[in-house]
Amino acid sequence: MLRWLTSGESHGPALVGVMEGLPAGVELTTADIQAALARRRLGYGRGARMKFEQDEVRVLGGLRHGLTQGGPLAIEIANTEWPKWTDVMSADPVAPEALLVDAGTGDEREVARNRPLTRPRPGHADLVGMRKYGFTDARPVLERASARETAARVALGVAAARFLEQGLGIRLVAHVVAIGEVEVPDDAALPHPDDVAALDADPVRCHDAASSKLMVEEIDLAKKDGDTLGGVVEVLAYGVPSGLGSYVQGDRRLDARLAAALMGIQAIKGVEVGDGFRTARRRGSAAHDEIVRGTGADGRPGITRTTNRAGGIEGGMSNGEVVRVRAAMKPISTVPRALPTVDTATGEPVTAHHQRSDVCAVPPAAVVAEAMVALTLAEAAVEKFGGDSVAEVRRNLESYVAAVPELLR
Amino acid sequence: MLRWLTSGESHGPALVGVMEGLPAGVELTTADIQAALARRRLGYGRGARMKFEQDEVRVLGGLRHGLTQGGPLAIEIANTEWPKWTDVMSADPVAPEALLVDAGTGDEREVARNRPLTRPRPGHADLVGMRKYGFTDARPVLERASARETAARVALGVAAARFLEQGLGIRLVAHVVAIGEVEVPDDAALPHPDDVAALDADPVRCHDAASSKLMVEEIDLAKKDGDTLGGVVEVLAYGVPSGLGSYVQGDRRLDARLAAALMGIQAIKGVEVGDGFRTARRRGSAAHDEIVRGTGADGRPGITRTTNRAGGIEGGMSNGEVVRVRAAMKPISTVPRALPTVDTATGEPVTAHHQRSDVCAVPPAAVVAEAMVALTLAEAAVEKFGGDSVAEVRRNLESYVAAVPELLR
Amino acid sequence: MLRWLTSGESHGPALVGVMEGLPAGVELTTADIQAALARRRLGYGRGARMKFEQDEVRVLGGLRHGLTQGGPLAIEIANTEWPKWTDVMSADPVAPEALLVDAGTGDEREVARNRPLTRPRPGHADLVGMRKYGFTDARPVLERASARETAARVALGVAAARFLEQGLGIRLVAHVVAIGEVEVPDDAALPHPDDVAALDADPVRCHDAASSKLMVEEIDLAKKDGDTLGGVVEVLAYGVPSGLGSYVQGDRRLDARLAAALMGIQAIKGVEVGDGFRTARRRGSAAHDEIVRGTGADGRPGITRTTNRAGGIEGGMSNGEVVRVRAAMKPISTVPRALPTVDTATGEPVTAHHQRSDVCAVPPAAVVAEAMVALTLAEAAVEKFGGDSVAEVRRNLESYVAAVPELLR
Amino acid sequence: MLRWLTSGESHGPALVGVMEGLPAGVELTTADIQAALARRRLGYGRGARMKFEQDEVRVLGGLRHGLTQGGPLAIEIANTEWPKWTDVMSADPVAPEALLVDAGTGDEREVARNRPLTRPRPGHADLVGMRKYGFTDARPVLERASARETAARVALGVAAARFLEQGLGIRLVAHVVAIGEVEVPDDAALPHPDDVAALDADPVRCHDAASSKLMVEEIDLAKKDGDTLGGVVEVLAYGVPSGLGSYVQGDRRLDARLAAALMGIQAIKGVEVGDGFRTARRRGSAAHDEIVRGTGADGRPGITRTTNRAGGIEGGMSNGEVVRVRAAMKPISTVPRALPTVDTATGEPVTAHHQRSDVCAVPPAAVVAEAMVALTLAEAAVEKFGGDSVAEVRRNLESYVAAVPELLR
Repeated sequence: MLRWLTSGESHGPALVGVMEGLPAGVELTTADIQAALARRRLGYGRGARMKFEQDEVRVLGGLRHGLTQGGPLAIEIANTEWPKWTDVMSADPVAPEALLVDAGTGDEREVARNRPLTRPRPGHADLVGMRKYGFTDARPVLERASARETAARVALGVAAARFLEQGLGIRLVAHVVAIGEVEVPDDAALPHPDDVAALDADPVRCHDAASSKLMVEEIDLAKKDGDTLGGVVEVLAYGVPSGLGSYVQGDRRLDARLAAALMGIQAIKGVEVGDGFRTARRRGSAAHDEIVRGTGADGRPGITRTTNRAGGIEGGMSNGEVVRVRAAMKPISTVPRALPTVDTATGEPVTAHHQRSDVCAVPPAAVVAEAMVALTLAEAAVEKFGGDSVAEVRRNLESYVAAVPELLR
Repeated sequence: MLRWLTSGESHGPALVGVMEGLPAGVELTTADIQAALARRRLGYGRGARMKFEQDEVRVLGGLRHGLTQGGPLAIEIANTEWPKWTDVMSADPVAPEALLVDAGTGDEREVARNRPLTRPRPGHADLVGMRKYGFTDARPVLERASARETAARVALGVAAARFLEQGLGIRLVAHVVAIGEVEVPDDAALPHPDDVAALDADPVRCHDAASSKLMVEEIDLAKKDGDTLGGVVEVLAYGVPSGLGSYVQGDRRLDARLAAALMGIQAIKGVEVGDGFRTARRRGSAAHDEIVRGTGADGRPGITRTTNRAGGIEGGMSNGEVVRVRAAMKPISTVPRALPTVDTATGEPVTAHHQRSDVCAVPPAAVVAEAMVALTLAEAAVEKFGGDSVAEVRRNLESYVAAVPELLR
Repeated sequence: MLRWLTSGESHGPALVGVMEGLPAGVELTTADIQAALARRRLGYGRGARMKFEQDEVRVLGGLRHGLTQGGPLAIEIANTEWPKWTDVMSADPVAPEALLVDAGTGDEREVARNRPLTRPRPGHADLVGMRKYGFTDARPVLERASARETAARVALGVAAARFLEQGLGIRLVAHVVAIGEVEVPDDAALPHPDDVAALDADPVRCHDAASSKLMVEEIDLAKKDGDTLGGVVEVLAYGVPSGLGSYVQGDRRLDARLAAALMGIQAIKGVEVGDGFRTARRRGSAAHDEIVRGTGADGRPGITRTTNRAGGIEGGMSNGEVVRVRAAMKPISTVPRALPTVDTATGEPVTAHHQRSDVCAVPPAAVVAEAMVALTLAEAAVEKFGGDSVAEVRRNLESYVAAVPELLR
Repeated sequence: MLRWLTSGESHGPALVGVMEGLPAGVELTTADIQAALARRRLGYGRGARMKFEQDEVRVLGGLRHGLTQGGPLAIEIANTEWPKWTDVMSADPVAPEALLVDAGTGDEREVARNRPLTRPRPGHADLVGMRKYGFTDARPVLERASARETAARVALGVAAARFLEQGLGIRLVAHVVAIGEVEVPDDAALPHPDDVAALDADPVRCHDAASSKLMVEEIDLAKKDGDTLGGVVEVLAYGVPSGLGSYVQGDRRLDARLAAALMGIQAIKGVEVGDGFRTARRRGSAAHDEIVRGTGADGRPGITRTTNRAGGIEGGMSNGEVVRVRAAMKPISTVPRALPTVDTATGEPVTAHHQRSDVCAVPPAAVVAEAMVALTLAEAAVEKFGGDSVAEVRRNLESYVAAVPELLR
């Protein structure tokens, strides 16, 4: 049982991620987490806001001398802009006058920061959040609904990924397969975990050089038009052993859990496993992955497949092939040419609050999606193999693999 | 907290669904459940097997005089073919000789029923299930992984749907939007819950007459070729109040839960909320649903939208518009022209077991998807509104709606 | 992750227990379940009602040829008295006239069975259940709140116990340590799993012959006075490996889970682990179990204890000693000399409904408590060791034990 | 659904508590939390260590301007002794030489802090934790298993308690009813929430003056003998509405959940609801709470009870009376006259590590128990009443109460 929660507001003092159930003995450092957070900030078409998101990471629990300790991990990501927000976002009550001119420079923008937000943005949680929680100010909604929260998921995701690699030999890689109308060709090569540095260097985290160039152009064009773009990201997990997840109950299925994990990311509207929607158009004789004896990805002789249309999951279980999932991200809702809405204080038609200046958040979404897949696979691994230490998980995995009869491998 | 589990094997004595947490006072009858199960058996391109699936329904707990009682519901769906399987699927040990010629007519096919299954079908749980659970016979895997299990979900889904309708005024409708290469046009009218009878009457549960005709032709063609077809189903929920689900934690999001619910159905490989993958191609200025004052779907003046690209969900919450989700189903893996596999008893290449003769299971998948959406919305409703009786849920809903300030409605 | 639910009403057609997450390969038969249910019916001081509770058991899912299959287990326990209750407890609506004279002999008492129950019994769920679920008739409450439901738990508990024995070598025994004022002496010998047959034969499931005799006398006396008795039961688990449960989070603690499991049984008002309340009176120097090198319970040299005051649990984890927990049962609330209450239809003071005639239900409560401990340990074992088959669990246990350094064993 | 996790080690930089699912609009301040933490440090017989536990509280998420925001609450409790432990408990690897003389004064005691702990203390998690998580040093075990962790529970408990008071009118009070052999008489008056200040002032948080004096003497005596004491604490919840928890499933029962919550506290070995074990000795005619019409605790006419032996819970549900639960705490395991154990590095018999100098931790355990009861009731309240804001919960409660028929109240 792996459980985790995040807390924190976009402009609050810090984000916090707490995760419980990770085995002891995972090698992990603050620098590992910072590196992943830095990757989340990359991406062509991201606005000035990203520099605010300097991440000061502190591990408050669960880690000692670079090894997880069996107890819950707590990671704090401080907000370096916090001094400007101490009054507006103060946990404790503040004197009303403190909210008139805040701790910053006192210019108009800073004062505005303190006013109730009553122009809910289409495509955001603003309007419904106000109804649901009984607010007349959208501030509390957008503070928590903000994609900034994903930094905490990424931080926890690093711990999960380290566990997967050290305990099970699973390695992940995420890349961008579409931005706006530009899509990576169907026959483009898939990236491998060894390609992560190259992907980090690519402006749009795209493994296909020609597509990458077109995506950058697409972003430039959208920016010129004061518009935004969405896209599609893909996460690949190499080395996943056969048998994570199960068919025995719907909510045990690995694909169901991955779908929830990905759809639970802000702005994601679609999820595919393997060829997904494309496979729904195919005929059965061309939609599955034939079972043959040959050489597996690990170089050993055994049962293998000539294709991987299923994305490494059959019957709700990993089947030994590369796990491959996609998530479709809608374009950023906060369009520079702001969208029509209604002022909930007056009922008048207005344009929506404009909070950020990114054109395209798809590349960082790939990093977030990778974190969610890591967390999901780690949970499934802990469920299948039990184990309270990395060594124990590894032993249990190895003895499981060894026990599969030769002709079933 | 709404919890449910299903149990039972495809050829076992019965399927059982147990659901806990449904409020008391939901009007429900055995006939309601039977009607839904009958709808699940409909669909052009379904083979002779469907007639085996005569469903004898018995409610064993939680229902009295047509009203739920607050306690867990238990629904048993007996297998009318059980007499032929009493030995093969006996819970208790049987004498080995009983498995040589079973309780049926003793012909070759009946004897075959007792043999270990060692030709795992590509696209199925067979191979991985054997590895995972330590079987040398795929029988236990395919018995449980079979889509027959969805009958239990549909049965529980009826109870959830009745609750949604009686307690919250939510009504569902599911339809087929694609079979193979045939897709309903983007501008086709959406069905309404009042159209359910018409959809039941359509051979492929398609709301667009022209598409329906083409789909039937597509199925005929595939059948002639000894092949199978997948497709895409869509579920619509009308009358969902604003505020189910939440943005405060990733796994609280309604879209994440719906994604898991749909992806957790056998053979589903993709899920979309609203325009899903199509919205990822759009620009931000044309991808969201503007907020305007006008006349809502319920005829009252208030905040409304001119489009519903989001599929009724923003920020992980229902926003008051029609909730609209899609699921992509791969073609049936058991292709009449059977797929290549390996005999796990000998290591020899063979063709896979062929267990069923459907060409296309997309129309019944729509019924199953509807059940899963009903269960998911019911869970979210119980979480938001609490309540131990339908009357209490209704009161809580009404007072919540009444408390939303006029300008936020 | 082991999950289970029960369903069914006291006078409904059947009780159903469904359990999900039990590994494949557990040897189990219908006869095993029937035997446990028979043990639950034993006990001096039980009334005529027990003979109604003839248990017709049918396993509907998850078991084949005497082995669990990895999928959810479903056990149905039919109610042999059902023909008398078909109208009163019908799932579907019945004609009002059918409730005037039921399917039985039509005498006055039988008709009474159909009347609303409006004299809530002190000590029962009746009154609060009516408020909570919006009933004006206590029937739906007492039908589900009845201790008859524990039959389903006992049935599932058998499966858990078989798993524990076959996968981990854990064996359980439950006995009665107090009835009313009669308590087994502190220095009485503890029973061993091999004593189960002897305990079954004892009228009050007491391992201490002298106490047993006194308990029987206590029951006779109470019966003569038209009164009822409670008592205390104890469950012992032998062979529990060191390390089930955890200190890392409060709800991971094995003692917390055992406490919930036992307190969740009808009529239980207190729970102890090891010496429990008695240990709270001791001084620290005499309250703990010294750690010494010697010969363990399994005959191997290693770390052991000279006492077991902790009941086999330290830091929320099993420590390798015998796990020992107690549950205090209040006397049956349905006292033959019925208790004062209020008629909720009239507001008049009346005496409470009298539904059953047992004097003392403590011996069967021991059987139920044993089932709950089995279910709890099985859940903890699955969490610690993972595993999808008994063989895999056993391998993981053995490699865990082998990996503990010599000086820590 | 209310979920919470704690993280942090005893000598780490901070403890963290994260709680998800608390409605918006709960009035709460940092000072409220600090006050509760200060109460947790009170208690006659506590050693010098308590002054180390100066609590610097920071709310990192979920609270703004003194009101909860609907999102997850995160509370950080900094460790003021952290500068002395930065190397020993560093999250990241440290140079080996840094562990020879740490950041403190460099005296012998400080150096000792860095040495592996290999003398597991009886009654603690030390020995089993090392086996389970694969450690050869008990440090990671005792750091997390330490009762210091309960500070995070108390912090979260304050938020739960504020919610209960503001949303439901529930108020709690906790007191000590036994220390060692000294027990408060059965007929002593129960404290009321208004007595909290007086209880805070009492050296042993005892409501009975005479018993308090005897308890202090008991502690003095134990201290003189170099020994420690346990005891029993009781938590009372006033104003709990009828109907929290349920009988419909064992794990829904409020008593089961309270039992888990209390038994999940470090050093608790027994739990009682109402009269608990004492009621098991009574006869049925004197063990229950008669139902009569009269004046309820709230002064309104209605159904009431003349006794409260059940502790406010019948059928697993709150029944409108004062909820009353007890927890038995074993004496502190770290006895000044240290207990015999084995050195796991050498196998030699030694005396156990001695880490703390308290004689009696029962008074603070009452504060922790109160927090656990608050968290449990808050969870049950959110489940029963739903609601995303305090106002909504209050509305739902009021309409529920108003809907109970006059004669059932």
